[in-house]
Amino acid sequence: MELDFVDWLRDRLPTSPRVRIGIGDDAALIELGGSELVTTADLLIDGVHFLSAEHEPERIGRKALAVNLSDLAAMACRPAGAVVSLSLPRDGVAGHTVRELAAKLIEGMLPLAEAFDCPIVGGDTNVGPGPLTLAVTAFGTPTKCGVVRRDGAHPGDAILVTGRLGGSLAAHHLDFLPRVTEALQLHATATLHAMMDLSDGLSLDLARLAKASGVGAIIDESALPLSEHAASSAAALSDGEDFELLLTLAASEADRLLEQSPLACGLTRIGEIIAGDAVQLRDAEGKLAPLVPRGYEH
Amino acid sequence: MELDFVDWLRDRLPTSPRVRIGIGDDAALIELGGSELVTTADLLIDGVHFLSAEHEPERIGRKALAVNLSDLAAMACRPAGAVVSLSLPRDGVAGHTVRELAAKLIEGMLPLAEAFDCPIVGGDTNVGPGPLTLAVTAFGTPTKCGVVRRDGAHPGDAILVTGRLGGSLAAHHLDFLPRVTEALQLHATATLHAMMDLSDGLSLDLARLAKASGVGAIIDESALPLSEHAASSAAALSDGEDFELLLTLAASEADRLLEQSPLACGLTRIGEIIAGDAVQLRDAEGKLAPLVPRGYEH
Repeated sequence: MELDFVDWLRDRLPTSPRVRIGIGDDAALIELGGSELVTTADLLIDGVHFLSAEHEPERIGRKALAVNLSDLAAMACRPAGAVVSLSLPRDGVAGHTVRELAAKLIEGMLPLAEAFDCPIVGGDTNVGPGPLTLAVTAFGTPTKCGVVRRDGAHPGDAILVTGRLGGSLAAHHLDFLPRVTEALQLHATATLHAMMDLSDGLSLDLARLAKASGVGAIIDESALPLSEHAASSAAALSDGEDFELLLTLAASEADRLLEQSPLACGLTRIGEIIAGDAVQLRDAEGKLAPLVPRGYEH
Repeated sequence: MELDFVDWLRDRLPTSPRVRIGIGDDAALIELGGSELVTTADLLIDGVHFLSAEHEPERIGRKALAVNLSDLAAMACRPAGAVVSLSLPRDGVAGHTVRELAAKLIEGMLPLAEAFDCPIVGGDTNVGPGPLTLAVTAFGTPTKCGVVRRDGAHPGDAILVTGRLGGSLAAHHLDFLPRVTEALQLHATATLHAMMDLSDGLSLDLARLAKASGVGAIIDESALPLSEHAASSAAALSDGEDFELLLTLAASEADRLLEQSPLACGLTRIGEIIAGDAVQLRDAEGKLAPLVPRGYEH
């Protein structure tokens, strides 16, 4: 439902001179008293985004903040703070009382909040009849280079990803490190044309970036940096929750950047932006086939 | 649970030079790129804050934004924008499909967003196994007079409320008009010492204001402006969700302000701030009794 509803929202919401970037990117940008506020929100539900019977509350809390930080990273912004709203089941979960649960969720967020200088400044705590639900809104500020949107890709751009892809559900989907530092470093080093975070799978997220930019793309299957948990390139293309960065920049700028091996987590060229609207996969023999968007649609 | 947990949070969360007002007031204030961001979050759950079987989705959506605007009003801030996160039941509610439900919730917010120049700029929409849940975070900016906190009441202050109190659950708890305009007008006209919105009942909220300010208070029972739906002064003291403003200011300043009858919704002096920590109710004969905090604790 989400994509269709997001399209509806984008059409329905009135424009405002204060809203520089509204619905449709990783985060919104609004003018606020002479400064720019970048903001993003994510809501996580037990049974959908995590399993309280399996996962410790601290890890669940951590993830709820991390996905928001990942969205700020996708815009190449510095975190500034977050608010946390909780809906807690009356009887707690997995042996934790509701009070313990609330505290453990917050405790799980604090190391990440500190690491990325993103203090938790407020929120709302409720006890209700439903499953554990966490709604986090994070704030950030652009650097002097401004934000990086997902709609700026040009034909001829190289397509890069940070880290390794695939298998996240088997591994680190709760414990991933949002690429805030990497995004700021890349943004300070090179002229980025477009960026987003990979939350729903490369094939699906790349289709969004291409559509937003009005371009096509070719991904080189053999270039995909598979994680040790990815069984195949199909996993790297369609597994959600990698939370790596997908970015495009001029091919020559990419050459220069990659020569420096700038990121400890890795940075890999995986394809190129082309004119048109076709998003394709090129196999090891150079044969092209449509890259069907498959991934996790909320 | 909320009060106890809020105390824990206030102690547990690290301080940050960027956080000027953290947990415990109606909204937080953080420094953001040279400007000041005021932000507040509220989460509403079906069966707790509204009943989807009885209330139209548009009214539910409207309320979710209105409670946040009321918190910005409580700080005497101008709204700047909001983000909306939804957890939608898979099968919709009350004959509305999940897609219709999402659209109607937003449609209900838009007139209020427009009236208070508070554009909806983003959010997150999810389908899940739980009851309908809305998490809204609103942003605002202080005027040049700064914000009004709840901890600034002085002994000798007059205590005022806007509008009329009590019976809101029978009447307007979904349709109340947040006192944004009134708060800005009062703040521009008089020197306010403390302010908050009445979300959980006068006796409970006044106890919070008094505790935060380190003062006591006396409320004159016969002065309470009862709404037509309030059966008695007990209703005005303990009914939640009035969403009127509770404010304190120097007695002479209150005299001057009340002479002007500044607000169409009404503005009434209901008591005074005293030294100490006793919060008391004075009946028509002048007899004092403790005012026991009774209201709606989330």
